[in-house]
Amino acid sequence: MELSARNQLSGTITDVKLGTIMAEVTVDIGGQTLVSVITRGSAERLNLKAGDTVTVIIKATEIMLGKN
Amino acid sequence: MELSARNQLSGTITDVKLGTIMAEVTVDIGGQTLVSVITRGSAERLNLKAGDTVTVIIKATEIMLGKN
Amino acid sequence: MELSARNQLSGTITDVKLGTIMAEVTVDIGGQTLVSVITRGSAERLNLKAGDTVTVIIKATEIMLGKN
Amino acid sequence: MELSARNQLSGTITDVKLGTIMAEVTVDIGGQTLVSVITRGSAERLNLKAGDTVTVIIKATEIMLGKN
Amino acid sequence: MELSARNQLSGTITDVKLGTIMAEVTVDIGGQTLVSVITRGSAERLNLKAGDTVTVIIKATEIMLGKN
Amino acid sequence: MELSARNQLSGTITDVKLGTIMAEVTVDIGGQTLVSVITRGSAERLNLKAGDTVTVIIKATEIMLGKN
Repeated sequence: MELSARNQLSGTITDVKLGTIMAEVTVDIGGQTLVSVITRGSAERLNLKAGDTVTVIIKATEIMLGKN
Repeated sequence: MELSARNQLSGTITDVKLGTIMAEVTVDIGGQTLVSVITRGSAERLNLKAGDTVTVIIKATEIMLGKN
Repeated sequence: MELSARNQLSGTITDVKLGTIMAEVTVDIGGQTLVSVITRGSAERLNLKAGDTVTVIIKATEIMLGKN
Repeated sequence: MELSARNQLSGTITDVKLGTIMAEVTVDIGGQTLVSVITRGSAERLNLKAGDTVTVIIKATEIMLGKN
Repeated sequence: MELSARNQLSGTITDVKLGTIMAEVTVDIGGQTLVSVITRGSAERLNLKAGDTVTVIIKATEIMLGKN
Repeated sequence: MELSARNQLSGTITDVKLGTIMAEVTVDIGGQTLVSVITRGSAERLNLKAGDTVTVIIKATEIMLGKN
């Protein structure tokens, strides 16, 4: 399946932290770190764990910009 | 000002495309490309143009993951 | 690729309307209608058109509820 | 009150799971299942429980599409 | 209908700007200004115009914080 | 850093509630109350606590409108 999301970056999970409802997944993308919050249910369904190769997916409308 | 947003990546604008209401800004972050859609009003207020150094800001709850 | 997004519904595109930056895609999912706004760039990259079978993908944190 | 949100589907709650801050609400919409994550405070304020009829509300900009 | 959205502020529309797909609606809430981007279709369906009293609705997960 | 986000309101934190993954921060903006959900990690990194002056930041595409 090809996604409409404009932003798809490949990375490696470095940490998964589980709460009751949510999960926080830390992903290294070529030396930079991204943190994703998904449901615990999804983290378990995908069996996400440190070392997994994942694709980070971000809809273009969700990205803000800052300028110095 | 320090932001709550967990994800802040530094990049360089490579393209700005303006519509009536929205604007599409393409940013190179260390060799990977991200596309952000913001309002045209914001693109003009920040005077965004190719070559500008910007910070890409993404709330953790807006990041999805895909696993092969 | 398996997605973290909890909500994935199958549907059929009934209309695609293109703006300068954005595109509005109407999808029938078993008799109910959903409207998605994505970038025009994505609509063109996926070559979206009426009659296409698509998957509608929604992150759980983006769904609100109303109760009468 | 009439909402700007383009997507409003009627459904029935099948499960409510409470965390400390968030709550996960599962809704059946005509045979398909949607999962919504809202705050626990909202789930309690609306007194959401299995069997309740609810409206699922999704802003058009939050819907992604996938095509095979 | 009572909404799960935690943030509902009353305001008055001061401007509506229409694009092909999107619309930008400016709302005064007690002296402060908020800008909302919705679909043109929704702006027309609700017949939004300057002077209208509206409720601004924001999901708690969509609000970021900054601290100096 | 100047942000693309159109909506930036000044307020004072009145409550911070911590979960395992998420945190709920209540902010008073000139007599009205907003609730923000961010990660617990961000709440701790910014050392958010009642009495802090903060800026509430909301992307225009995340604001819905309701009309009576």
